[in-house]
Amino acid sequence: MIDRSMAPAEKRDLVSIEDLSTAEILELFHHADEFRANLHAWSDLCRGAIMATLFFEPSTRTRLSFESAMLRLGGGVISAADGDATSRAKGESLADTVRVVGGSYADILVVRHPEDGAARVAARYATVPVINGGDGAHEHPTQTLCDLYTLWKEKGRLEGLEVVLCGDLRYSRTIHSFCYALARFGANIVTMPYPGFELPDYVMQRLQRDYGVQTAVAAMGDLPGLAGSSNAAAYLTASKPHQLALFTKLTNVEVNRIDAIYMTRAQRERHEGEDTANYPRLTRSTMGAASTKDARVMHPLPRVDEIDYDLDDDPRSIYFRQAELGVPMRMALMAYLLGKVQLRASRPELLSIMPGMPSDVLRCRNERCITNNEGVRYLKRDFRLRADSAPPKLACGYCEREIEARFVGHAQSRVAHRYNAAEVRRTKAENRVYFESEAQAQAAGFTLAGS
Amino acid sequence: MIDRSMAPAEKRDLVSIEDLSTAEILELFHHADEFRANLHAWSDLCRGAIMATLFFEPSTRTRLSFESAMLRLGGGVISAADGDATSRAKGESLADTVRVVGGSYADILVVRHPEDGAARVAARYATVPVINGGDGAHEHPTQTLCDLYTLWKEKGRLEGLEVVLCGDLRYSRTIHSFCYALARFGANIVTMPYPGFELPDYVMQRLQRDYGVQTAVAAMGDLPGLAGSSNAAAYLTASKPHQLALFTKLTNVEVNRIDAIYMTRAQRERHEGEDTANYPRLTRSTMGAASTKDARVMHPLPRVDEIDYDLDDDPRSIYFRQAELGVPMRMALMAYLLGKVQLRASRPELLSIMPGMPSDVLRCRNERCITNNEGVRYLKRDFRLRADSAPPKLACGYCEREIEARFVGHAQSRVAHRYNAAEVRRTKAENRVYFESEAQAQAAGFTLAGS
Amino acid sequence: MIDRSMAPAEKRDLVSIEDLSTAEILELFHHADEFRANLHAWSDLCRGAIMATLFFEPSTRTRLSFESAMLRLGGGVISAADGDATSRAKGESLADTVRVVGGSYADILVVRHPEDGAARVAARYATVPVINGGDGAHEHPTQTLCDLYTLWKEKGRLEGLEVVLCGDLRYSRTIHSFCYALARFGANIVTMPYPGFELPDYVMQRLQRDYGVQTAVAAMGDLPGLAGSSNAAAYLTASKPHQLALFTKLTNVEVNRIDAIYMTRAQRERHEGEDTANYPRLTRSTMGAASTKDARVMHPLPRVDEIDYDLDDDPRSIYFRQAELGVPMRMALMAYLLGKVQLRASRPELLSIMPGMPSDVLRCRNERCITNNEGVRYLKRDFRLRADSAPPKLACGYCEREIEARFVGHAQSRVAHRYNAAEVRRTKAENRVYFESEAQAQAAGFTLAGS
Repeated sequence: MIDRSMAPAEKRDLVSIEDLSTAEILELFHHADEFRANLHAWSDLCRGAIMATLFFEPSTRTRLSFESAMLRLGGGVISAADGDATSRAKGESLADTVRVVGGSYADILVVRHPEDGAARVAARYATVPVINGGDGAHEHPTQTLCDLYTLWKEKGRLEGLEVVLCGDLRYSRTIHSFCYALARFGANIVTMPYPGFELPDYVMQRLQRDYGVQTAVAAMGDLPGLAGSSNAAAYLTASKPHQLALFTKLTNVEVNRIDAIYMTRAQRERHEGEDTANYPRLTRSTMGAASTKDARVMHPLPRVDEIDYDLDDDPRSIYFRQAELGVPMRMALMAYLLGKVQLRASRPELLSIMPGMPSDVLRCRNERCITNNEGVRYLKRDFRLRADSAPPKLACGYCEREIEARFVGHAQSRVAHRYNAAEVRRTKAENRVYFESEAQAQAAGFTLAGS
Repeated sequence: MIDRSMAPAEKRDLVSIEDLSTAEILELFHHADEFRANLHAWSDLCRGAIMATLFFEPSTRTRLSFESAMLRLGGGVISAADGDATSRAKGESLADTVRVVGGSYADILVVRHPEDGAARVAARYATVPVINGGDGAHEHPTQTLCDLYTLWKEKGRLEGLEVVLCGDLRYSRTIHSFCYALARFGANIVTMPYPGFELPDYVMQRLQRDYGVQTAVAAMGDLPGLAGSSNAAAYLTASKPHQLALFTKLTNVEVNRIDAIYMTRAQRERHEGEDTANYPRLTRSTMGAASTKDARVMHPLPRVDEIDYDLDDDPRSIYFRQAELGVPMRMALMAYLLGKVQLRASRPELLSIMPGMPSDVLRCRNERCITNNEGVRYLKRDFRLRADSAPPKLACGYCEREIEARFVGHAQSRVAHRYNAAEVRRTKAENRVYFESEAQAQAAGFTLAGS
Repeated sequence: MIDRSMAPAEKRDLVSIEDLSTAEILELFHHADEFRANLHAWSDLCRGAIMATLFFEPSTRTRLSFESAMLRLGGGVISAADGDATSRAKGESLADTVRVVGGSYADILVVRHPEDGAARVAARYATVPVINGGDGAHEHPTQTLCDLYTLWKEKGRLEGLEVVLCGDLRYSRTIHSFCYALARFGANIVTMPYPGFELPDYVMQRLQRDYGVQTAVAAMGDLPGLAGSSNAAAYLTASKPHQLALFTKLTNVEVNRIDAIYMTRAQRERHEGEDTANYPRLTRSTMGAASTKDARVMHPLPRVDEIDYDLDDDPRSIYFRQAELGVPMRMALMAYLLGKVQLRASRPELLSIMPGMPSDVLRCRNERCITNNEGVRYLKRDFRLRADSAPPKLACGYCEREIEARFVGHAQSRVAHRYNAAEVRRTKAENRVYFESEAQAQAAGFTLAGS
């Protein structure tokens, strides 16, 4: 029987991998190990609990993994797996759907949605824990947890590993979440994108801001099959919270030992029409290179043909193990969110982010953000000020994409100044109103100082 | 473990809200209260039972509510949720589907179907209890149970309440079932239809016949947002089984106190092309009117935009509570039908309906009736004679729509007369054959007396 | 709790009905009887086990039957029921899907797939037991088990029964599996195909080879409704493993007693455009014929209109019972594969089949075979040599369709000969390389002897 007495005092969600502290993640790994030791031994743990999978975008793999995890915990599953066959076709908002399904139908929700930031919307409106099962190009944190867990089990650590990310780094939300997490755990990242599919700028900026990531050219040696990508290889190393990157100016890194190659498929559904003819392909000869001797081959699956079937029997290929470990990892996560497993570690400190403020003026620049799509009808936009940024940067409260506020007004006097004006510094934080441009300030009825 | 020893001596179904007596409904409310007190405490009650949801029309909300209820009772769920992906695509009849699935697959069936009367077909052919999850424009009785239960909990009673029904009253089967139930419980109904979407005549006629409903013009005062609808507001009050409407001639009723406003969305999938631009919209200012001070705002959901999101936080808004209460209400219903909960109250007396008689001649006039659609191949049409109606009225045994039989023949003599002829009164009931017209009688080989 | 200690020492699959010995099938019938005695008494037997239904082709009936069986055993169910909404749409191979889902998600897989041989692919790649839920036009063995079980219960035996197969015998995989099983159990088969929809040659050949089936003209007497088909009726009787067909030359058999008529619908989805206007139709008058007095009417369902609804109440109609018995039959099968029920009988001896050999040269001639479709990318073709066939016959390791190898080469000398050359007999089995034609041998770089 489920009681919430053991659950975290306030409801917790997993929308972004940043919602868990590094220590919490490691604790979850140990719990996952316990679950994995005998997957069939837990069918009483969450008896009576119900998980709802709300999938507004198809994903058999992720959905089945969650459903298996919940059944193995002894709980029940209800599922709305086909976006078209749902109330959404009748015009219902995500906020309404999660309030209904999270009302008495289910005790925990897993949401997949095509719009960036949708999972945050679900988490805000639902009264039960929400897990992000992938929201647009934003994040897919449980995939990241499973990837980290697999790598951690294989290598015994994450710090200092050399992890190559290969293929489509632009549209793969999996890659984005994974990058943040690798940087946080002190692993080094080598990006080998298929040309045109580089890591987006906003991901790079976040890596730099939050983890002090420095970038260098990576010399990869000969990696057959990945030729086109290796010309553009970049080496990313975090300088915080770890003190690993001691060099002050990093320009060129020779990578002689690869710990893991993380391959991704071309997300064809997200970039139709673009040429992927020379997409990298991992083969036996790639894995014959000296630097890959101890490398693990990873892939979030489904694979199309970017990894040769010949490699399936190679003991270094662990992509099926990644999938296998997804079940105990998700069991650990859900058991925790439902109050059946305790974590002793502290929660993440979100020091760099100040509380959000609702805005009638600012609009998220990410066209795929839910605030610019299905949320237009009902969401109050809000933005969070990044600490210590000049000009001030404001992150969308849903999709986390940032905008620059070059003008700051005073809520009472209705006068706005350039962000670096003395008047701004004298304005109390709670009176500051942020604008991207003069035009925006004027449209909101503010007078521009000095104009 | 499920045994049927505790189940009602004969199988019971819930096809129409009329299938339950008023006292039974109130008993079910009390059982629902028990389930609701701790939703997680019942996971052994129906262990081993299986519910099948057969949804030939999409409805995530209703399906998930039933599935959650069954899981919370400890039972299992199998689901055919997509009409196209089923045996139906191969040409299978509903009668065959329910005989198979209700054979050994499942212990209780929930059926949603686009054709009026489909749930009655399912109930007749299946050997296990059938619950109507919505059949065409006919009924949706569990929604009605949940609505009544919510209102009853909020107001402590149903008798004498003033309930406003607003929006699309024509195509909403929810509204139709709700009207019958409100009249039965002695609540007064104010209809405020969007022009062109009034209650159908056959619903009004049934309200008059079964509950002696009288109609008056309703003066609603100023209700911003509902302006267009309020011009046509009608006040419906039942004179039986209650003796509330004591006035003999009711012409105009001023409504100064509203207990509930039940809002419905435009059922766009049922009336494409019709203009819904000025569809009523409930806002904060509507709810600022004096008459709405203690009103509850209800909605069967999904909402599109006929209730402002601003109202979500208003304590009088109970549409999400309606959805929440659906789970314990459905738990109570299913536990009863599966024999795990007993009702002491008497069943409804169906005094006004005589047994059905199969007909080769008569045809239901409701073009959406299952007898005129998928049942053409295999259903025997039958009609039930309404007691005390002149000319005689016959209700379709499936969709309950009535036809008038102005001619009555004698099965042996093959002679037909006008319904009010002396010869008809002398004909024994079992020898009477009913016709809508002379032509119909002649086509069936009857001679018209006096012609 | 599931432990695999009771499971068969090596994983067993049910891809073909031939994967079970006759004695094992009879044992499973007795277990099914036990399950059926109280369907609700087993909800602890497979507690903790998870079944995944992977249906790449729609089939509500089969899927729901399996899901019900698993729930009645106390296990859990995860389901990917819509081919389009799955990873397959992203280009994933069946081999990858079953490795993922059979990794930690599920303990047993049920696979339905449109391509012949797909279930064998699933069985080879998955580490958990795989049940074939229908693969293209290949087999549907659990349907066969249910059919046999029903007939066995009705008639008390299978040996010596006279079973009429009627309708579409060409595209119905159900019929194919059923034929093999009837022959094996010593039942006699009367084929009454709708003209143009006869049993395929490869089915007849297998019946002859494996069961020594002899064919005669069947004189059926007058069977109204089946007229068109009865002109072409053939009588099939097995001479092994039973010694029933003692006559040396069988030319004409008069069938005066029919034990069962197995009717099938036109598989319209498999032969669009072909005329089925005079498709046979079983009616009351068919069943009035003297020879059908004790006949049972069977149908795999869904029925379209090839059996009159009037026959539903006839006690000889057992098609709904077939469906009903499917659940306990599948419970028995799954309980066995999961190690919860033991079989004492010996497994089938696959004496007639030699181990498979991978081939770069040979290609399966069945265009619907998975090796010619989605498996092209990754499957290694292999073929199994049929013992004692001249010219040598090789069966596709997936779909079992045979090809003739008229030329045999020597792996070392790279010289090929006609299959009946002395040199071939002197070549060790492991050095033989098989070819269908001279051209094929030459294309593979072999020299033709004597050319």
